[in-house]
Amino acid sequence: MEFQAVSVQTDMAVEARELVRGRSRRDIPGVRVHEDRRDGMLVTRVHVVSDEAARLMAKPVGHYITIDVPRFKERDSDLRDRVTEAMAEVLAPLLARPLGEHVLVVGLGNWNATPDALGPRVVDRLLVTRHLEAVVPADIRGRMRRVSAVAPGVLGTTGIETVDIIRGIVREAQPDRVVAVDALAARSPSRLLASLQVADTGIHPGSGVGNRREGITEETVGVPVIAIGVPTVVLAAGMVWEVVRRLAATLKEDAVFHRALAEMEQDDQRRLVDEVMGPELGTLMVTPKEIDVLVNDMADVLSDALNRALQPDLDRTEWA
Amino acid sequence: MEFQAVSVQTDMAVEARELVRGRSRRDIPGVRVHEDRRDGMLVTRVHVVSDEAARLMAKPVGHYITIDVPRFKERDSDLRDRVTEAMAEVLAPLLARPLGEHVLVVGLGNWNATPDALGPRVVDRLLVTRHLEAVVPADIRGRMRRVSAVAPGVLGTTGIETVDIIRGIVREAQPDRVVAVDALAARSPSRLLASLQVADTGIHPGSGVGNRREGITEETVGVPVIAIGVPTVVLAAGMVWEVVRRLAATLKEDAVFHRALAEMEQDDQRRLVDEVMGPELGTLMVTPKEIDVLVNDMADVLSDALNRALQPDLDRTEWA
Amino acid sequence: MEFQAVSVQTDMAVEARELVRGRSRRDIPGVRVHEDRRDGMLVTRVHVVSDEAARLMAKPVGHYITIDVPRFKERDSDLRDRVTEAMAEVLAPLLARPLGEHVLVVGLGNWNATPDALGPRVVDRLLVTRHLEAVVPADIRGRMRRVSAVAPGVLGTTGIETVDIIRGIVREAQPDRVVAVDALAARSPSRLLASLQVADTGIHPGSGVGNRREGITEETVGVPVIAIGVPTVVLAAGMVWEVVRRLAATLKEDAVFHRALAEMEQDDQRRLVDEVMGPELGTLMVTPKEIDVLVNDMADVLSDALNRALQPDLDRTEWA
Amino acid sequence: MEFQAVSVQTDMAVEARELVRGRSRRDIPGVRVHEDRRDGMLVTRVHVVSDEAARLMAKPVGHYITIDVPRFKERDSDLRDRVTEAMAEVLAPLLARPLGEHVLVVGLGNWNATPDALGPRVVDRLLVTRHLEAVVPADIRGRMRRVSAVAPGVLGTTGIETVDIIRGIVREAQPDRVVAVDALAARSPSRLLASLQVADTGIHPGSGVGNRREGITEETVGVPVIAIGVPTVVLAAGMVWEVVRRLAATLKEDAVFHRALAEMEQDDQRRLVDEVMGPELGTLMVTPKEIDVLVNDMADVLSDALNRALQPDLDRTEWA
Repeated sequence: MEFQAVSVQTDMAVEARELVRGRSRRDIPGVRVHEDRRDGMLVTRVHVVSDEAARLMAKPVGHYITIDVPRFKERDSDLRDRVTEAMAEVLAPLLARPLGEHVLVVGLGNWNATPDALGPRVVDRLLVTRHLEAVVPADIRGRMRRVSAVAPGVLGTTGIETVDIIRGIVREAQPDRVVAVDALAARSPSRLLASLQVADTGIHPGSGVGNRREGITEETVGVPVIAIGVPTVVLAAGMVWEVVRRLAATLKEDAVFHRALAEMEQDDQRRLVDEVMGPELGTLMVTPKEIDVLVNDMADVLSDALNRALQPDLDRTEWA
Repeated sequence: MEFQAVSVQTDMAVEARELVRGRSRRDIPGVRVHEDRRDGMLVTRVHVVSDEAARLMAKPVGHYITIDVPRFKERDSDLRDRVTEAMAEVLAPLLARPLGEHVLVVGLGNWNATPDALGPRVVDRLLVTRHLEAVVPADIRGRMRRVSAVAPGVLGTTGIETVDIIRGIVREAQPDRVVAVDALAARSPSRLLASLQVADTGIHPGSGVGNRREGITEETVGVPVIAIGVPTVVLAAGMVWEVVRRLAATLKEDAVFHRALAEMEQDDQRRLVDEVMGPELGTLMVTPKEIDVLVNDMADVLSDALNRALQPDLDRTEWA
Repeated sequence: MEFQAVSVQTDMAVEARELVRGRSRRDIPGVRVHEDRRDGMLVTRVHVVSDEAARLMAKPVGHYITIDVPRFKERDSDLRDRVTEAMAEVLAPLLARPLGEHVLVVGLGNWNATPDALGPRVVDRLLVTRHLEAVVPADIRGRMRRVSAVAPGVLGTTGIETVDIIRGIVREAQPDRVVAVDALAARSPSRLLASLQVADTGIHPGSGVGNRREGITEETVGVPVIAIGVPTVVLAAGMVWEVVRRLAATLKEDAVFHRALAEMEQDDQRRLVDEVMGPELGTLMVTPKEIDVLVNDMADVLSDALNRALQPDLDRTEWA
Repeated sequence: MEFQAVSVQTDMAVEARELVRGRSRRDIPGVRVHEDRRDGMLVTRVHVVSDEAARLMAKPVGHYITIDVPRFKERDSDLRDRVTEAMAEVLAPLLARPLGEHVLVVGLGNWNATPDALGPRVVDRLLVTRHLEAVVPADIRGRMRRVSAVAPGVLGTTGIETVDIIRGIVREAQPDRVVAVDALAARSPSRLLASLQVADTGIHPGSGVGNRREGITEETVGVPVIAIGVPTVVLAAGMVWEVVRRLAATLKEDAVFHRALAEMEQDDQRRLVDEVMGPELGTLMVTPKEIDVLVNDMADVLSDALNRALQPDLDRTEWA
């Protein structure tokens, strides 16, 4: 069989696709892909169509849109503006709804752990309007969408499953739709703070930073869930595994080295890493040195893009 | 009539009592008071018994316990330990419940506004256990109470009434009891970060920092609510009013000054203040210069006292 | 004598002028004033020319430029852009120097106390270039001014007079000029986070937030010092005093009230306030409820204006 | 030659010793080592005596004391107390000086980057006394050592070499001694937030978190410098290299695998890693998931230990 199901989890559909394809030149059956390169960005639209493709990639059937911005870490304000613009364009068709619709934005993650704080920081910068209807001038009210926002915390600090908190709030506040923003874990260090993913499938349990165990999806919270995520960490175990995988690939082409390592199956390679590095990898993560400022930059991009997509009829000076 | 209903709101029952009594030497009918002075603290237990007393004080029938610690701002660690101990003793009979009971602690207020951040900071330091039952050793599990905690944010940043968020979470997580921690507004500057109030009546709308409009009570959230609060601000309007009140009292005893100001009714004095200071007072607050460290000190005291009262059977080293 | 020397300190030259003038319609001799009203701002240029005027106002001879923006607290991004522009224009002639000049920006104040954190937050957002000369492309190097920046802390946390720290750094880093950014104390609540002052006289000890006792001036640090300040607090004692002053003025016109209060000298009014409010006012300050976000907004304005004025030849996208 | 000079930098003397010794059972000539195991800690005293040993280890001649606390990350408050006690004991003979001596504590690193914020956070919690002499009661003054403290920032945010800032402050404030606290980079993930090093040699340029390029030593600042450091990150490049080193060691004992990898020299292994992982590793770091709380815990330990060692004659309640 040419395609092997992914054995190491990643939150990114584009990475799952790479892992499943391996060195194959064909794409995975049941997956449709469209790429668009422009302005220092690569926009990839992955449509997982078949159940078999979903099984191979460990990603539910649905649409996944990724904006790769390799140079995001250089902190160029001009590039940041273009990414914001591109993200707003990606979000617009998913979010621009009838004026009366109420959208609840949920910032997943932990305020107090920088790489996991992306969601709460986005929520913190968002234009929240649901409580303003009575107080804004009629002129603005007629153009303003209803937006609410919460940062529910994480299981480790609340003692309550995050999905339960969201379900409770959804029942009371009755939004028509949820947008969940989360920090992701990637496989490849080059994607850290350099890749923005939007999915119409909600959030599914994975190797994400905070290990949110139950999915946050239309099934679990009762209304459709759009998921927005950006990788902020590579789990150290994943990176070491990646080192071994690349070593194996490198060594394969070098006649001097024994093929044993190079030809090990993925699972054997993982066992080797566990044996070599021991349990100390468990709680380690790999992250850019400038993680604090980069998470803030990304929160600016996401909140601004959300504001534009959620409030197409408000002028920018009316919210910023 | 000797007792005049309070016309300026305060979150503190002891202040409401002072305002209603004025210069009377008798106590308000329908109010039982017990004072206990020790170790640099004054513990006052105010029991509002009758509906008439509740009306005069603008405080529902119930128990209000206040620990006044005038020297808290001096940051003496020894005093802080004694206050923690006293607070744990006050809370213990209200919170020490059967092992199976689940207590949800709610930190009201806004993370991003220092004087309003007391509740979230207490939650941040709390021993949360509800999700640990499956993972702790049986020995500890047999002595551990179930505690969960959330910081729901404020209407201004969520767009959802705080009471609705809490009601939704209560419905999902099914606690037997809620403890709500909040920053209060006091009338007297001397009570800032120097007075701890516990009430078995829940939280009622008032002049509090964040203006949480609907009460958080057994009626609104479905389970009993213990309220813990500490004043962190005096609203500027309140303080100016207090200046005028004291000026009036001072001038009264001075034959040189005309009695007009001194004998004005409370409402006339307030009108005078409004006339004199204008609308600029509206959003101002009075707060100690060291508010940041003092809110942290107080959050340490409250979280530690809560941990002790909620976990009487755990050793301190098992949580701190 | 028509003009009475100010008896309550203020960091703002425009307030000192108001206090000295009282109800006089003439201006203070030895003071030249130019006002320019536009775009929701009032730009006042006060030139203290004579020593007598300096004594009356308790402000050294020199230039003081104030931008009053009464609506700054409404958080309109458009207005914020106009204020940034106006501030950059005020700073440009004071700072645009030969390319080789090295400017050291000093953020006075305490990171950990929100109203006193303005200076450190400005420094935190500043484009610092002095160490980049060797690494930027020649094209940029040819247009880049040398800027360094420090946040030296406050006496209470360092144990060292701030002026000594700055003098030591100036001796080592050898800047040609210092720009000192500081949070100020105002007399009038309406000036809080709504008034930006630039002075070519350095920082002089006053009623400022952190009570920096020795001046930071060309005399004490060895190079010219431009001071930028924004009031973030009104000392509570000052505000109460202001209440009494206004009460007195109000009562004066009301025949019903005795003239005693109304006709008290300033010093007697202050004694009355002390008697009435006691020592508890000492460490209290009055500040807007939204102080945290407003200090951040203002830090954005000041750092952006400084970047523009310090780097006239860099394109905005090259630093932001 | 049995001992090979270290080729990958580490800030930890104990790691340098391990790297130089390799699998040798003898210790490095010119190095004296004393180990003391107790209470869940291992205290290692490494005395680099000879210049040759200093060259091999890339560590100057001097004393290096390390407290290894493998279980620090479990956040047991009891263990934390024992580590504080042990650290105070290590520091006491180095710091307990005549009453008149003035000690300047310097918190190196960047406030805004969590793993680099250890130094500033220690300074933030320190008992600073130099400015209090005039105001404390004579009784306390007679027992109080003079302590000052600064957090000078990092080159990237100040534009000034950190050593220049410190030299300038030392010249003005004239301390008799400097204590420099810094976050370190370790080679082994197991030492993260689990190893405390004290050295009487000052700070030397290395692979440390913030890359402070010039040493902070008696030669560069003019007074003796005690260095205190705790590793908070492993540079990702170092960790990958460590993976390869361990893989090589593992494979060596397995006859199935070719010896080529196993027998590569250190430099060849590094070249292989560079080839395999590319430049993306450059700015990545490996850090524990709970880095925020762990840095706070460690700052508590270090500041408390410093307070005890610096103020042996003050009672603990007089400062905490």
